[in-house]
Amino acid sequence: MLVTVDPLKPARGQAGLMNRWHPDIPAFARVAQGEVFKLGCHEWTGGQVKNSDDADDIRDVDLSEIHFLTGPVAVDGAEPGDALVVEILNIEYYEEMPWGYTGIFEEKDGGLFASEFKTRASKAVWDFEGRFASSRHIPGVRFAGITHPGIIGTAPSQELLDEWNRREQALNDAHPGASPAVALPPLAEGVYVGQDLPADVLDKIAREGARTVPGREHGGNCDIKNLSIGSKVWLPVFVPGANLAIGDLHFSQGDGEQSFCGAIEQAGKVTLKCSVVKGGIEKFALKQPIFLPSPIDPLYTQQLTFEGIGADLHGDGSQKSMCATTAYKQASLNAIAYLKKLGYTLEQAYLLLSAAPVESHVAALVDVPNAMVTVSLPTAIFDRDILPHPDGLEKRDYGNCALRSDGLRSFDLLDANEDKAKAAKK
Amino acid sequence: MLVTVDPLKPARGQAGLMNRWHPDIPAFARVAQGEVFKLGCHEWTGGQVKNSDDADDIRDVDLSEIHFLTGPVAVDGAEPGDALVVEILNIEYYEEMPWGYTGIFEEKDGGLFASEFKTRASKAVWDFEGRFASSRHIPGVRFAGITHPGIIGTAPSQELLDEWNRREQALNDAHPGASPAVALPPLAEGVYVGQDLPADVLDKIAREGARTVPGREHGGNCDIKNLSIGSKVWLPVFVPGANLAIGDLHFSQGDGEQSFCGAIEQAGKVTLKCSVVKGGIEKFALKQPIFLPSPIDPLYTQQLTFEGIGADLHGDGSQKSMCATTAYKQASLNAIAYLKKLGYTLEQAYLLLSAAPVESHVAALVDVPNAMVTVSLPTAIFDRDILPHPDGLEKRDYGNCALRSDGLRSFDLLDANEDKAKAAKK
Amino acid sequence: MLVTVDPLKPARGQAGLMNRWHPDIPAFARVAQGEVFKLGCHEWTGGQVKNSDDADDIRDVDLSEIHFLTGPVAVDGAEPGDALVVEILNIEYYEEMPWGYTGIFEEKDGGLFASEFKTRASKAVWDFEGRFASSRHIPGVRFAGITHPGIIGTAPSQELLDEWNRREQALNDAHPGASPAVALPPLAEGVYVGQDLPADVLDKIAREGARTVPGREHGGNCDIKNLSIGSKVWLPVFVPGANLAIGDLHFSQGDGEQSFCGAIEQAGKVTLKCSVVKGGIEKFALKQPIFLPSPIDPLYTQQLTFEGIGADLHGDGSQKSMCATTAYKQASLNAIAYLKKLGYTLEQAYLLLSAAPVESHVAALVDVPNAMVTVSLPTAIFDRDILPHPDGLEKRDYGNCALRSDGLRSFDLLDANEDKAKAAKK
Amino acid sequence: MLVTVDPLKPARGQAGLMNRWHPDIPAFARVAQGEVFKLGCHEWTGGQVKNSDDADDIRDVDLSEIHFLTGPVAVDGAEPGDALVVEILNIEYYEEMPWGYTGIFEEKDGGLFASEFKTRASKAVWDFEGRFASSRHIPGVRFAGITHPGIIGTAPSQELLDEWNRREQALNDAHPGASPAVALPPLAEGVYVGQDLPADVLDKIAREGARTVPGREHGGNCDIKNLSIGSKVWLPVFVPGANLAIGDLHFSQGDGEQSFCGAIEQAGKVTLKCSVVKGGIEKFALKQPIFLPSPIDPLYTQQLTFEGIGADLHGDGSQKSMCATTAYKQASLNAIAYLKKLGYTLEQAYLLLSAAPVESHVAALVDVPNAMVTVSLPTAIFDRDILPHPDGLEKRDYGNCALRSDGLRSFDLLDANEDKAKAAKK
Repeated sequence: MLVTVDPLKPARGQAGLMNRWHPDIPAFARVAQGEVFKLGCHEWTGGQVKNSDDADDIRDVDLSEIHFLTGPVAVDGAEPGDALVVEILNIEYYEEMPWGYTGIFEEKDGGLFASEFKTRASKAVWDFEGRFASSRHIPGVRFAGITHPGIIGTAPSQELLDEWNRREQALNDAHPGASPAVALPPLAEGVYVGQDLPADVLDKIAREGARTVPGREHGGNCDIKNLSIGSKVWLPVFVPGANLAIGDLHFSQGDGEQSFCGAIEQAGKVTLKCSVVKGGIEKFALKQPIFLPSPIDPLYTQQLTFEGIGADLHGDGSQKSMCATTAYKQASLNAIAYLKKLGYTLEQAYLLLSAAPVESHVAALVDVPNAMVTVSLPTAIFDRDILPHPDGLEKRDYGNCALRSDGLRSFDLLDANEDKAKAAKK
Repeated sequence: MLVTVDPLKPARGQAGLMNRWHPDIPAFARVAQGEVFKLGCHEWTGGQVKNSDDADDIRDVDLSEIHFLTGPVAVDGAEPGDALVVEILNIEYYEEMPWGYTGIFEEKDGGLFASEFKTRASKAVWDFEGRFASSRHIPGVRFAGITHPGIIGTAPSQELLDEWNRREQALNDAHPGASPAVALPPLAEGVYVGQDLPADVLDKIAREGARTVPGREHGGNCDIKNLSIGSKVWLPVFVPGANLAIGDLHFSQGDGEQSFCGAIEQAGKVTLKCSVVKGGIEKFALKQPIFLPSPIDPLYTQQLTFEGIGADLHGDGSQKSMCATTAYKQASLNAIAYLKKLGYTLEQAYLLLSAAPVESHVAALVDVPNAMVTVSLPTAIFDRDILPHPDGLEKRDYGNCALRSDGLRSFDLLDANEDKAKAAKK
Repeated sequence: MLVTVDPLKPARGQAGLMNRWHPDIPAFARVAQGEVFKLGCHEWTGGQVKNSDDADDIRDVDLSEIHFLTGPVAVDGAEPGDALVVEILNIEYYEEMPWGYTGIFEEKDGGLFASEFKTRASKAVWDFEGRFASSRHIPGVRFAGITHPGIIGTAPSQELLDEWNRREQALNDAHPGASPAVALPPLAEGVYVGQDLPADVLDKIAREGARTVPGREHGGNCDIKNLSIGSKVWLPVFVPGANLAIGDLHFSQGDGEQSFCGAIEQAGKVTLKCSVVKGGIEKFALKQPIFLPSPIDPLYTQQLTFEGIGADLHGDGSQKSMCATTAYKQASLNAIAYLKKLGYTLEQAYLLLSAAPVESHVAALVDVPNAMVTVSLPTAIFDRDILPHPDGLEKRDYGNCALRSDGLRSFDLLDANEDKAKAAKK
Repeated sequence: MLVTVDPLKPARGQAGLMNRWHPDIPAFARVAQGEVFKLGCHEWTGGQVKNSDDADDIRDVDLSEIHFLTGPVAVDGAEPGDALVVEILNIEYYEEMPWGYTGIFEEKDGGLFASEFKTRASKAVWDFEGRFASSRHIPGVRFAGITHPGIIGTAPSQELLDEWNRREQALNDAHPGASPAVALPPLAEGVYVGQDLPADVLDKIAREGARTVPGREHGGNCDIKNLSIGSKVWLPVFVPGANLAIGDLHFSQGDGEQSFCGAIEQAGKVTLKCSVVKGGIEKFALKQPIFLPSPIDPLYTQQLTFEGIGADLHGDGSQKSMCATTAYKQASLNAIAYLKKLGYTLEQAYLLLSAAPVESHVAALVDVPNAMVTVSLPTAIFDRDILPHPDGLEKRDYGNCALRSDGLRSFDLLDANEDKAKAAKK
């Protein structure tokens, strides 16, 4: 156990953790190639979210603190230009914390449908039973985890870091006043490095350190559900030692993740093994990471698939040009509408689509003007038959997930549009 | 065999074919619910492309003619508001035409990378051996088909058709002079309906008939590789009888399809069975089709996966905001760069990625500002080990695919950028 | 099409067919290595069984005639000691014969449970809809075919043929009067070779030709469901040209096949490609064939599995020593008993277990004295939920399969034993 | 943690363990239905085997002691006639014992090939890296575990126990002097129950308690590789509380297990959940257990398959009648012969076939006189291409596994026969 973490205490104050990307964060530990090692990881918010039945913690979360990662770990022999090969051998949750959660953040903080739904803060707590999860907040489903680190990346060089900051600021500059912001610039508030560092170094990290939210060339917050236990990933190396960091463990996640903390967030212990391919960036044309998915992922063969196109997303007759994002959202909305027919609330459907082993394929990006994307629900995770039967779908009462306690209501633009459409017809 | 087609003669002139969507095209045939029936289908261009070793036919193709579909077929009892359930029981190629093709169209005509590559017209002819395909133009690969109709859809109502034309024209209006055009409005030139129709009806169809290129609410050109033999699809019904049409058969296609005629285009015979769910649109919240993928799709388990993000697509430091299209393109370019390391030319790599059973997942659409999309190459389709080995990738000589005969060269902007970048460093 | 067959006319009289193994049967056709070719195949009995609703044809079948194979086909360059590599590229049924059948032969003729059941002759006719089959005689199930040739083999050398005849006769000699016989010696009656042969050659074949029933070193009647379309098999070569023969096509079959003609027997067209590995027998230690199963087999993931041990097969307290055959039978009987709880008759259950994509694994052959074998029912082939629910299994009325018309009843020894046991308890 | 075990100390002396089946062993713990609980399990020999490089411990193992199981655990509400439903939620190895082993016992103690090979005692130690195992004693392979309990069973009633003892003794009586013995009767020597019991009770258990070696009607030592983590099993209940016991954990095992301790034997912690179906034996015709295999088993798609028939097992011209055991052995010997061509020793090949995720299907048990069984090697577990190439198989030097230290040699009857055959030919 190279880094030990206590998941029941706040991450802030624990050694070997960090929440920004910066080349000047020194390696906290060092491993030899071929060595098998373990890293403790806190859950992404560092302990702000509770195993409770309201979502006030989600509403009040301090996002300046995220993500608490473990590292950096230097790997012997890694040099800029190399590829760092990481095998993800296992991820285990802590016996003392056999649960995780999925949350819907409110409008201000993002999520795929920030501008479609006016959802209040919501949460589902998932209980882990061995390799399976279920939630008292979303009855009727249970599934095996395709467990993976949401974040795995190497440290950027100063040059690369500067470029990230430049281009993301430029995007922000092009969208003044956007809410939620279209990109997250460096933020001194909340910065954490669990090492004793000189003040000037820490200050530089605070001023320049890249936020951990997006995935970038080094991997980072890729949030790829199939980069799971048993995978092998080739990461580009930008600094001596590679300085690997890892965290944001997900017990499960659907393709797309959707609701910002849409995966089942967990603390846990990661088992890794690393090696180095000299000159791997050039050898493999490695602009971003490549990986071999795991041979041991659960297989949910039968899937009910929803098509989505890049037009009329809000029932408003809009037409996008080859926009896979819109098509993905459309397919997701179609799946949510279907789940509501089964009896799930908007919030439950949204959380379920985010957290379950949902598949989404880019089906066609070629037929102007409509992108075509599919979203597929695994039928075997439900304790009932969800297929479209000639008699229609039986609507059951599933209660609701954990909500913010002040009674604010969610507001589904789609329902609103539907109401308008019905009214117009009369 | 409800509609008989001769795949070796031009589609134009054959009965039961059509190449526009319009509610006034009468049903050419009628089936009872539960009846198993077969439809002959021409390949999408109606016979413009040859089994040859140059790509002049691709260069010269007349796109006003596409797609030649078979239908419409009316289904007893289907009414607007219902769902038409279609089971795709089989797709066979004609013994007399045991081949198909994949093409790269030139800049003017579209394709995912129309603005990244200046590719000349290119083509790969694929020979079918039972359920497997290989190509003399892309040596070293062979795979089983995940065979599917690129197009399967019901006829639109007049109201829906008008809305399609309105919103697509609006998009065109917003992008004056775009080349290729961002949407394809109705076009009288090339219209074909293989039935005897009064002149005024035909004229109306010619003026208003929706082009078959994009997928829309009725299904249509969805180009979903997993809507394959063995699938069952629920399509919304907009006109009495549903008036199903089908065509654009693909022996195989990668997720995304990419190069406009990126699938392996084939003529063939489709076996179908239909039923009707009364009020299915309301019962299943059916805004677009939903389907159950086939239990008999080939399974290419091991896949080498490429990450792509929505930034720096051209090596130019650009930054998109949550753009899955850009991320998909990035992942694809990374895969193409890898295939070039193995020895494939740009055109071969592009065609292969379009035609082989490549998977693409929307991995994360949540981490501002970068969308994350993956593109995965099935390793078992290659006759060599393509995994990233420590010693690098052996570059083999695979010749090239069929090209336009006048010697025009393709031009890879990425290579150009790389050259510029190298020059800048010196 | 190297050999053309009319499936609607009796096999006897058609050219290129044969029903015995003998080195002196000359090659009927010859192919080059790498050549793709097609062979028509009759169904195994050569046309004795009808698409009807009684099983008198099964009762009256003349087994001296079986199996009608297609061949021999000589492959250029194959010599004794080589391995013949055969790729099974496709198997199609004839448009004019879109059906097959499964039969239970009566006691005299064999079948796995010849001494457990006194089953009357029974039959299920299966209708093919593209790649799927269902039967009016076994309602409630439908599945995709894992289609394969029950028989694929090379010609034996005279030496090998003599050895087969010797060892099988020795077994018969050791079990005098066994009914059904424990082995089938050469039988002049019914011999057929669809070529013009000198009388003395034909006579030798009739006297010595090995029956086609068992699989042997050359492959032959292996009845392996996963040696299916898309497989590649290495067969030992014993005579110049290898002299491949193929037939006994199965649209589907469960592991074990059980009821003698337990597979779904069909006529059809096989597409093949062959090559030769010089000295392959020595290179690969090829005592029997080896093969690479198909990447395109349907995947029925969820399976309900029945354990079987090598003891107490008939409820009679018997104890076998490491007998996998007994354990397989036990697991099958457990599955049959379960299917009867669902409402299927003994005959239907037996036929279904024989014909559907049932899996059977040798689980453990190590724990004295009990072998352990499992038999697994794919749950997705049923149109209902067959899992063991706390409330028990709903028994439906599925009618019965086709039976012999004279009203003879089947007799289930297990039920009889159960009755006895119940009587004893009172 | 209901039962705590120290895997580094001998099992004998630890509470909550047992090594015989008897209804008079009282429940050591009790659980409610639906409760998730954990049980520590020792490895099957209770600590007799070491992580070392010789096999003297295997040679000297005291089999009167096996298997050390954990239990019995009573489940609230279970009564004779019910079905006990057990979900296997997880199996973890101990951090302090991240290894397991596979052994070949010598002739006297059994194993599938006890009469084919004269193998000396041999052993492979497997190191666990997360969910993967590899062995310094069998280089070149690595695989994910399909981890399962070799033993899971309910307590027998006195009546059932008596019947087991009767029928197994009858078998022994019918094979006097057999070596190894064909069945293992109760044996007072070595009996262990980790509870304080009155002397007379313990004495009765010692005299009558069924050995744990074979699987029986209650489940027991079923050694089914797919009854793995994520499975759900229905066990018949014979005593109040059901009195579940579990143990003999296998990190991995091939179908058949072969070499007596052919699985990768490990200590570990099992997570379970139980419920009861009243009258389940009658409801589900539950003569032996039935189970739903896990949705999370690793998938090794590509497999090289070896056919085996029930004849000529030793190259001696013998002919069995429908013997699946012989066919399984033949297929296994063919696979071993192939592995030897790759460079593995007889012992390594035998151990590998026993421990790796090898599949074995009962292909056909219908074609007199030859049973047909297949054994399949997963190709992806090897670090090289093992497919049969035209140039033959490259023979590498893999050293050997751990052997008994006194230099006794193994003796392969097959090689001996081959030598004889070659000699005879000259």
